[in-house]
Amino acid sequence: MTTKLRLNCDLGESFGAWTMGNDAEMMPLIDCANIACGFHGGDPLVMATTVALAAQHQVWVGAHPAYPDLVGFGRRSMALSAAEVTATVLYQLGALSAFCKQHNTEIRYVKPHGALYHDMLKNDDTFSGVLKAVRDFDATLPLVILAHPNPTHWQSMADKAGITLWYEAFADRAYQANGMLLPRSQPGAVLADAEAMLTQAMQIAQKGTVTAIDGQTISLRADTLCVHGDTPSALAAVQKIRRALDANMTTGNAS
Amino acid sequence: MTTKLRLNCDLGESFGAWTMGNDAEMMPLIDCANIACGFHGGDPLVMATTVALAAQHQVWVGAHPAYPDLVGFGRRSMALSAAEVTATVLYQLGALSAFCKQHNTEIRYVKPHGALYHDMLKNDDTFSGVLKAVRDFDATLPLVILAHPNPTHWQSMADKAGITLWYEAFADRAYQANGMLLPRSQPGAVLADAEAMLTQAMQIAQKGTVTAIDGQTISLRADTLCVHGDTPSALAAVQKIRRALDANMTTGNAS
Amino acid sequence: MTTKLRLNCDLGESFGAWTMGNDAEMMPLIDCANIACGFHGGDPLVMATTVALAAQHQVWVGAHPAYPDLVGFGRRSMALSAAEVTATVLYQLGALSAFCKQHNTEIRYVKPHGALYHDMLKNDDTFSGVLKAVRDFDATLPLVILAHPNPTHWQSMADKAGITLWYEAFADRAYQANGMLLPRSQPGAVLADAEAMLTQAMQIAQKGTVTAIDGQTISLRADTLCVHGDTPSALAAVQKIRRALDANMTTGNAS
Amino acid sequence: MTTKLRLNCDLGESFGAWTMGNDAEMMPLIDCANIACGFHGGDPLVMATTVALAAQHQVWVGAHPAYPDLVGFGRRSMALSAAEVTATVLYQLGALSAFCKQHNTEIRYVKPHGALYHDMLKNDDTFSGVLKAVRDFDATLPLVILAHPNPTHWQSMADKAGITLWYEAFADRAYQANGMLLPRSQPGAVLADAEAMLTQAMQIAQKGTVTAIDGQTISLRADTLCVHGDTPSALAAVQKIRRALDANMTTGNAS
Repeated sequence: MTTKLRLNCDLGESFGAWTMGNDAEMMPLIDCANIACGFHGGDPLVMATTVALAAQHQVWVGAHPAYPDLVGFGRRSMALSAAEVTATVLYQLGALSAFCKQHNTEIRYVKPHGALYHDMLKNDDTFSGVLKAVRDFDATLPLVILAHPNPTHWQSMADKAGITLWYEAFADRAYQANGMLLPRSQPGAVLADAEAMLTQAMQIAQKGTVTAIDGQTISLRADTLCVHGDTPSALAAVQKIRRALDANMTTGNAS
Repeated sequence: MTTKLRLNCDLGESFGAWTMGNDAEMMPLIDCANIACGFHGGDPLVMATTVALAAQHQVWVGAHPAYPDLVGFGRRSMALSAAEVTATVLYQLGALSAFCKQHNTEIRYVKPHGALYHDMLKNDDTFSGVLKAVRDFDATLPLVILAHPNPTHWQSMADKAGITLWYEAFADRAYQANGMLLPRSQPGAVLADAEAMLTQAMQIAQKGTVTAIDGQTISLRADTLCVHGDTPSALAAVQKIRRALDANMTTGNAS
Repeated sequence: MTTKLRLNCDLGESFGAWTMGNDAEMMPLIDCANIACGFHGGDPLVMATTVALAAQHQVWVGAHPAYPDLVGFGRRSMALSAAEVTATVLYQLGALSAFCKQHNTEIRYVKPHGALYHDMLKNDDTFSGVLKAVRDFDATLPLVILAHPNPTHWQSMADKAGITLWYEAFADRAYQANGMLLPRSQPGAVLADAEAMLTQAMQIAQKGTVTAIDGQTISLRADTLCVHGDTPSALAAVQKIRRALDANMTTGNAS
Repeated sequence: MTTKLRLNCDLGESFGAWTMGNDAEMMPLIDCANIACGFHGGDPLVMATTVALAAQHQVWVGAHPAYPDLVGFGRRSMALSAAEVTATVLYQLGALSAFCKQHNTEIRYVKPHGALYHDMLKNDDTFSGVLKAVRDFDATLPLVILAHPNPTHWQSMADKAGITLWYEAFADRAYQANGMLLPRSQPGAVLADAEAMLTQAMQIAQKGTVTAIDGQTISLRADTLCVHGDTPSALAAVQKIRRALDANMTTGNAS
């Protein structure tokens, strides 16, 4: 692998009086901050604080737009039309961009959140709606989508829309043999062991593969790796992944 | 009067299944559209539609940010800190700017809505918070504020912040002798008669004065004139004001 | 038909500064008012006013709970778990009941709104969630569900939950041959002609059938008939249906 | 003191994916649970869980209604009319009552939250609006209000409305010499030391007084004592207060 595998993390998901995540501790460890835009988390003050923190650590700001479902944290599918998806995403991209202006930075990519992220893969209208939002806002911004053994369908749609895709793999989620994530509702969906996360992360970084829950090796080209730091052990795992990736880049260790 | 008195109107205040106003009929008559940004009215689809309509008619787009009070239509004062005001306004400016990108236009000015508009005049923290939002977003954007016989205090604060103020008078609202609007809760607060609106509008345009409810003549320098088109008679009044202002400009009729 | 076919209508769907429907004109014409509970329409003040109006006209109050989707007017499916459906519906039943206490009346039945109404038919988890909400709130309340040529599945689930179903037919919606409504997205979905509505209403009332769009006659036992009064012609149609139903009852005209 | 000084605590303030407080640990320690009703915290599922927990521990359920300001956690004053206050509070009382039905318990009292709680004391319209909501919902429910050296004004208004007041003192908040709480914005507003909380609690319980920040002793008749358990040390303090109050009751220790 000659390209850097960027670490991304969902941040800025606190809301009002409620705190979520370890933003201050995660920010120095990552390359890309997916910042909530108010629809599933992240009120205006939280967005301002999070963008400021990203700017301070020279972390790339990514928009993390969601369905309008605060109580469901954007994790429940909603039957939005393509036009509704486009307008809903555009609104959130714009809102985040104002805080980027405030802190002399800018949105560098778009990663849909939760159910919107997953619905893009299942529903072409949803994916079209997101692609159009990115294109109407700034056609040079990459759109993050789940890495898949055979991404031809989505790549083709993105190519037609003139949008670059960034394929994303997960350090801390179990994979099914078809290349999709094991749903959170199933046991073992989230890797809890720091070593397991590190192993999976480095396999993706160095070999471009993951090992599915049935033991199969899946080819998975990834541009960015999603990590979470909600627990102390997750945070420790991310620190290890960070160091290993940096060492990997330095030594030019390639698959 | 040598400068043009721009007509502005609050538009894009529909929300979801609920319709408000006569946007399609008002847009061709005005110079400046104050477009709701989702916090008191205007959902993402409505914002897209309204910005498109403004762009089509080459009407200037103004942001019309509000307190986060959908059920109260932004008309109820809320005790936000200056920092909360700044973040809340920034969020809405950004959101609207995305639809401007979508339709190849841009935000040209900012006019706070409802209670936020009025609280700016009463509470320096609120006004500071709004000024900072405008400055952080784009310091070249004018901020609309109520025209007043003695606006020194606000002008001085705006000067320090480096923000241009546009003073706004109302064609269809009764004035008190102190230069403030008669509150909506009082009888006669809203002029219903088209001739009365036209007379007041032209007095502002040509003489820079209004006649208060007690008969006093008040000096009121205005850069822009607010009109509403919610009823057929109001719409007719705006048509007359539009024609009279255009004729006034053409003939160079000055006070 | 020996039992009365009750007319029901969705009311109280205004919200804040936005008005919807002709509640004052419809209320005297109907037997049952489906009153919005704040999640798709109907803020607390609107709910108070609507319940007062129902009480004044001795119209039965029905709860009209919805998904939490104000901007989508509750018309977009949302992937709520059964437990989320139960809690969401319970919350709304309770909220409405407070206004019933205020006006010395009570909730007499429950009719889910929009996408929740339709999802009940397609998704047993959703239907179970609604049934449990009604049972936990007041197991004597009937639940309104779409009348269908073969309602055995839903009737069986309701029987197990100990909940009475009221089957509902529509005066102003076109039917498919399978007994389901023609979706609103298709042309001709909503009957616009007053005579057509009257004919369909009386066929349901007197014969227990409807004529589908392909001309087939469908057996449809209905306890209640849904009408809308959003337009002047719809309102006129409801007045005719009201008179015809009353005459039908008086004369004992049976199928 | 011959009457029991009931311990009350704000619970059920989690929302969606966000957790707040130590509800499971606090519930066994208190007599009265002020349960959020969805407007400042507490979504339908959280409300169901919290009411179930209260029922399990035979803790009295109190409604904890707030201004409609989720992002501000109900802590920001909003200029609601008396009618808006009444409808807003009624809505929340009703919503909570549905979960009480679900768990075979009932609302036993009403304690407004945050800015609404404080605005009642400053604004008679607000207080009237709350009193009317309680009366319209269930005139036998007590309303919790801040204990004050001279509560004549509020007592008189409540007497006219036919509503019982429960006066509330705070174990963990500093008092000003005028009997009001030191605002949270000021240093020392919240007592952090467990011994200081215990001392203040027992002084209120046994002597009916508190010592203000300037050293003055203030007479403060209280029916209930508010405690919080957000931190481990606060939780420990509440455990001590619980034991001390129970011992006080057992020994008949009177001031």
